[in-house]
Amino acid sequence: MLNNEITELLKIKYPIIQAPMAGGITTTELVSEVSNYGGLGMIGAGYMTPIQIRTQIREIKQLTSNSFGINLFVPNEFDVTDQEVKSVNQILRPIREQLNLHPIDSLEIPTFNHLLEEFNEQIKTVIEEKVPICSFTFGIPPREVIHELKQHHIILMGTATTVREALENEKAGMDIIVVQGSEAGGHRGNFTQGYQESLVGLMSLIPQVADNVSIPVVSAGGIMDGRGLTASICLGAKGVQMGTAFLTCVESGANELHKEEILNAHEDQTVLTRSFSGKYARGVKNKFISEMLQNEASLPDFPVQNILTKGIRKASSSQNNRDYMSLWSGQSPRLAKRQTVNALIKGVISEANNIRNGK
Amino acid sequence: MLNNEITELLKIKYPIIQAPMAGGITTTELVSEVSNYGGLGMIGAGYMTPIQIRTQIREIKQLTSNSFGINLFVPNEFDVTDQEVKSVNQILRPIREQLNLHPIDSLEIPTFNHLLEEFNEQIKTVIEEKVPICSFTFGIPPREVIHELKQHHIILMGTATTVREALENEKAGMDIIVVQGSEAGGHRGNFTQGYQESLVGLMSLIPQVADNVSIPVVSAGGIMDGRGLTASICLGAKGVQMGTAFLTCVESGANELHKEEILNAHEDQTVLTRSFSGKYARGVKNKFISEMLQNEASLPDFPVQNILTKGIRKASSSQNNRDYMSLWSGQSPRLAKRQTVNALIKGVISEANNIRNGK
Repeated sequence: MLNNEITELLKIKYPIIQAPMAGGITTTELVSEVSNYGGLGMIGAGYMTPIQIRTQIREIKQLTSNSFGINLFVPNEFDVTDQEVKSVNQILRPIREQLNLHPIDSLEIPTFNHLLEEFNEQIKTVIEEKVPICSFTFGIPPREVIHELKQHHIILMGTATTVREALENEKAGMDIIVVQGSEAGGHRGNFTQGYQESLVGLMSLIPQVADNVSIPVVSAGGIMDGRGLTASICLGAKGVQMGTAFLTCVESGANELHKEEILNAHEDQTVLTRSFSGKYARGVKNKFISEMLQNEASLPDFPVQNILTKGIRKASSSQNNRDYMSLWSGQSPRLAKRQTVNALIKGVISEANNIRNGK
Repeated sequence: MLNNEITELLKIKYPIIQAPMAGGITTTELVSEVSNYGGLGMIGAGYMTPIQIRTQIREIKQLTSNSFGINLFVPNEFDVTDQEVKSVNQILRPIREQLNLHPIDSLEIPTFNHLLEEFNEQIKTVIEEKVPICSFTFGIPPREVIHELKQHHIILMGTATTVREALENEKAGMDIIVVQGSEAGGHRGNFTQGYQESLVGLMSLIPQVADNVSIPVVSAGGIMDGRGLTASICLGAKGVQMGTAFLTCVESGANELHKEEILNAHEDQTVLTRSFSGKYARGVKNKFISEMLQNEASLPDFPVQNILTKGIRKASSSQNNRDYMSLWSGQSPRLAKRQTVNALIKGVISEANNIRNGK
């Protein structure tokens, strides 16, 4: 049961993928430890420059000879006016003041073409550095990109939140689909559908996707232990991608306050918000989310809002202030533990084996 | 695995409970067939009078000697002004016209005390007619009611959408907890928390509840087959409660159009709405839901809105018009089949056994 197409394709011992959480969480230590202990370590490279990517890949290769992967954000088109940026800056002004940040009056917003160029540079680096596995969020890369990656024998994983998105990923040539349930922490991966329709729980999503695609399915969202792994496999998945469970590990680069907030949170304390980045994402509710709620609909799209709140999130984090940080978490925070990657993976596998053996 | 505390407590062969869907779906035939084929048939008696309840219990006892159960709605306090009722009637006027219904200018709204009296009459009937199992939605009954039911050796099941609600049910003396995931169709069972916080997917909800209560847990929401049953058990549940899967069975009393709508729906086409009843519920999106969306926040609470839309739902249904019916469905409509109760239960159990045996 635990050895299947997924472990074969990804060349891993256990069908456990560490979710490629962006923003400094997937340290070299985290990624390499996951791969060393039989899972698939993943670099969350969405916000990284080609140089940062190259450096981290090389560091990881020093620490593990096992398979690992990288995740990139597929750029989405967006529309933004100077007026919108000004208006959000007005809303954010008192928060910046509270955090002793200088007010920002204008902001350099990259064009969509610029984002596409950056994406192509990231892809080039992944190929040059021979990363064996590459996954995507927020969409499907252009046909030429997929073609080139495949020519270099890189295994491709797409993200889907509905059957329709899974079918599009399969058609585009992905080798594996990660289905993201409504339980998942961090950004929603929906790209063809509204975020409301994309909020399907894994109990429903896994079997409906598995029935409709031929490529293997990996489930993501609220999975923390051997119970989640065996349940996912019963439902038709071949493996799991776990985010929050790895985020609170000692090797993760998440801020200590972020880890603590998850370790103290309950299942009913995470919410979906677009206030941090312009894209809906799930995290532990805090002051920023509550304060921005009334303006949520009028905030600019990703990545503009993300750029606008970057300084605030960074300052809040370095000042150990939970109020303005993005405290991403899935819906199972009560199952999170402060432990090593080794302990987490061992625990998941031994619990899964016990369940399979009816213990 | 399939024989456990739940099958023992409920005196059933398989840990499959037919969800007590209210509003004419749980016909005598449906309930008795579920019990005859080894599951637990349940009367959805939330909207039924004591006489209707008594009649159906007696009919069911003619058709099965096996265990069956009944579900009641715990009355909730509500506030409503004449002005609110008038304003909603104004909004509903064009819809009534379209369905050739007379306009309604005033409406007899029962008081909370009246609802409590009705509830006590329902309880009295359940005791007199010796129904072995009674479950509750929308809250926990008063202490005296629980005490009396227990004195008559009736097994009690409560509904919870979060760990906190599960703990309250356990403390109140429930024997079993049904945890309702965000995947579930029909009304949300949340009673201490807002509906947003109560939307926890089963992958997260089951293990977190199971870790925190000592009484057995039954999972509900999007479960349609042996995959859902085995996954639920892996996660820590002892059984499942299935609604949509039984709704499309030939024995169910759901309108044929309702069955067809589910059979043709996709996982991303159900939405949460309070437009039909004043309480959030999940169903297939239609014209009424879309049209009422802008007024949703200002609609009166359950049961007032439910009374206000009753004639509309009924007329829409009898005129075979999908636009104004409540098309309740969970998030797994792609897994629904038109089949007999016998075929459904046999299929679930044989699939579950195959999964357990690694086939």
